[in-house]
Amino acid sequence: MAPITNGRLIFKEIPTGYPIPGQTTAYDTSSHIDLETEPLNGSILVKTLVLSVDPYLRGKMRAPERESYTPPFFVNEVLYNYGVGKVIRSETSAFRAGDYVYGILDFAEYFIPKDITKLEVIVEREPTLPYSVYLGAAGMPGQTSYYGWKEYAKAKAGEVIFVSTAAGPVGSIVVQLAKQDGLKVIASAGTDEKVKFCKKIGADVAFNYKTTNTADVLAKEGPIDIYWDNVGGPTLETAIANTALRARIIICGYISQYNGEEDYGIKSMKNVLSNRLSINGLLVFDHQDRYKDEFYKVIPKKLASGEFIYTEDITRGLEKGGEAILEVQKGVNTAKKIIVVADD
Amino acid sequence: MAPITNGRLIFKEIPTGYPIPGQTTAYDTSSHIDLETEPLNGSILVKTLVLSVDPYLRGKMRAPERESYTPPFFVNEVLYNYGVGKVIRSETSAFRAGDYVYGILDFAEYFIPKDITKLEVIVEREPTLPYSVYLGAAGMPGQTSYYGWKEYAKAKAGEVIFVSTAAGPVGSIVVQLAKQDGLKVIASAGTDEKVKFCKKIGADVAFNYKTTNTADVLAKEGPIDIYWDNVGGPTLETAIANTALRARIIICGYISQYNGEEDYGIKSMKNVLSNRLSINGLLVFDHQDRYKDEFYKVIPKKLASGEFIYTEDITRGLEKGGEAILEVQKGVNTAKKIIVVADD
Repeated sequence: MAPITNGRLIFKEIPTGYPIPGQTTAYDTSSHIDLETEPLNGSILVKTLVLSVDPYLRGKMRAPERESYTPPFFVNEVLYNYGVGKVIRSETSAFRAGDYVYGILDFAEYFIPKDITKLEVIVEREPTLPYSVYLGAAGMPGQTSYYGWKEYAKAKAGEVIFVSTAAGPVGSIVVQLAKQDGLKVIASAGTDEKVKFCKKIGADVAFNYKTTNTADVLAKEGPIDIYWDNVGGPTLETAIANTALRARIIICGYISQYNGEEDYGIKSMKNVLSNRLSINGLLVFDHQDRYKDEFYKVIPKKLASGEFIYTEDITRGLEKGGEAILEVQKGVNTAKKIIVVADD
Repeated sequence: MAPITNGRLIFKEIPTGYPIPGQTTAYDTSSHIDLETEPLNGSILVKTLVLSVDPYLRGKMRAPERESYTPPFFVNEVLYNYGVGKVIRSETSAFRAGDYVYGILDFAEYFIPKDITKLEVIVEREPTLPYSVYLGAAGMPGQTSYYGWKEYAKAKAGEVIFVSTAAGPVGSIVVQLAKQDGLKVIASAGTDEKVKFCKKIGADVAFNYKTTNTADVLAKEGPIDIYWDNVGGPTLETAIANTALRARIIICGYISQYNGEEDYGIKSMKNVLSNRLSINGLLVFDHQDRYKDEFYKVIPKKLASGEFIYTEDITRGLEKGGEAILEVQKGVNTAKKIIVVADD
């Protein structure tokens, strides 16, 4: 078989503002690959099916000497992120041709991973769920919700929870876990369309925080027993100020201060003592050993049956990857952003 | 026997700042009592021996309609707090004349409790321990330390703890529990004399936060795995900024903002996410059922044997009670503040 073009999305230049397609990133067709003969050196050949586009990718587009919680992208190298692919050939007993793998994939139509420990075989896929769902509700974002819920929420039926960015891939699963456990759910989001989605997935109260005052809503609908925080800053301050006795706060994101904004001082911390609050920072990787198997047994089934609802915003074709990345940075995506690179 | 004067400390006025003796509180000698004939109506007559003066009393000096974790004092009524007294007469089988009782006592030389369930007989007193110790290291403050340590510290030998107000009745027991568990202890206090006491009870690093910068000490001696917070405000902010991964913060007091100071905004809350911190508000009463018996088995023995060290700052005479309360609010007391109302 003759070599074929292997389209790839390359990191070209460290951006100062938004990442511009064709400048910050570029789709490259100069690489070719022979699927039958390309040497694997003990690794595997993966065909990329779907890739996740997340806000945090912007943080990787930085000068490499700047430290952060995630390693930097390097100029002239291929971008990478969570994705699902299919194994075409294998030279290791850990994978077989035909396996579907989840993990860190190159933004390339085909690739040979240097480190196969960053990939795992998807064993028990729900047959009716598209692979893209394994990047969102059935993947890392959904796991974040599930682990945090199991570990820190201590939810009791009848309690009140407030979820910020409730239409997002993490927040929307939290909303549905909370409804399943019999809680009253207050949900906030940044567009009226997202607010509508919050109601569709069961939120009792949903509001657009850009047009409605969060403190007013919590004063009326609270006090809250649980706050699921994805934003930090003034929203966190307001939530702490509206807690019930022994409320639990799960800090899962701090997006209000990812982009160099000045640190906001939380003035309501006295309430941690007076209401005996419990506040926990949540990182999904800390809890995998304990809850991962359970997650895969429980959540994909609920998504496949329609008991839990998810939503996606699909970009078709890796050549449009730069545009997809920019949409997420500008927040104009309508839901969890996925690039479909190839059909199965 | 003729009636005698029954001196009492009365709450006169809700303060806006510090509680001023003679204005916020007043010593009153207008009440008289006949110890032999005063009707008890099924209750007991208690002679007050020692009373505890605690920072949280300021929180009770508020407009009664303002909710809080502790009920308010009412204007023109007698103050009350933890104390030890001796039963003079009894009309209930729950107490006998001669019993020593611990619990909530009026700030009065003699009193007849309306609710005797707030008192308990001290049965197994360590014979060498003065009763005043049952108001400090062997009482509610010591319980606070012990319960919080058991419930939230999750301490491991070799870890680093920072304790603020470490020479106080709560902090000093925390320091000694931490040393017993093999931790490195950083202790802060507000006078050089208190710093000396911190070293005496085993703190590895002790400093006067008024003359030494807390951030510098923590940068050099940290990062910290546990912070025991008694003060809130900038100290809490600095501690959060100097945490290690998965550090635990126990918020047990917020004295920097008990006296009408403006709410301070904590700017380091992003670290709760990046370091996956766990922050818990601690109130002693929440944990009594679980740890109280164990506490009385363990701690008084250690205090009596000298394995654990305590210190007290005694004010003699209830007429000086207002001054004792103010000293504690200003932090000019040298140790656990006790009012000795009468000798046994």
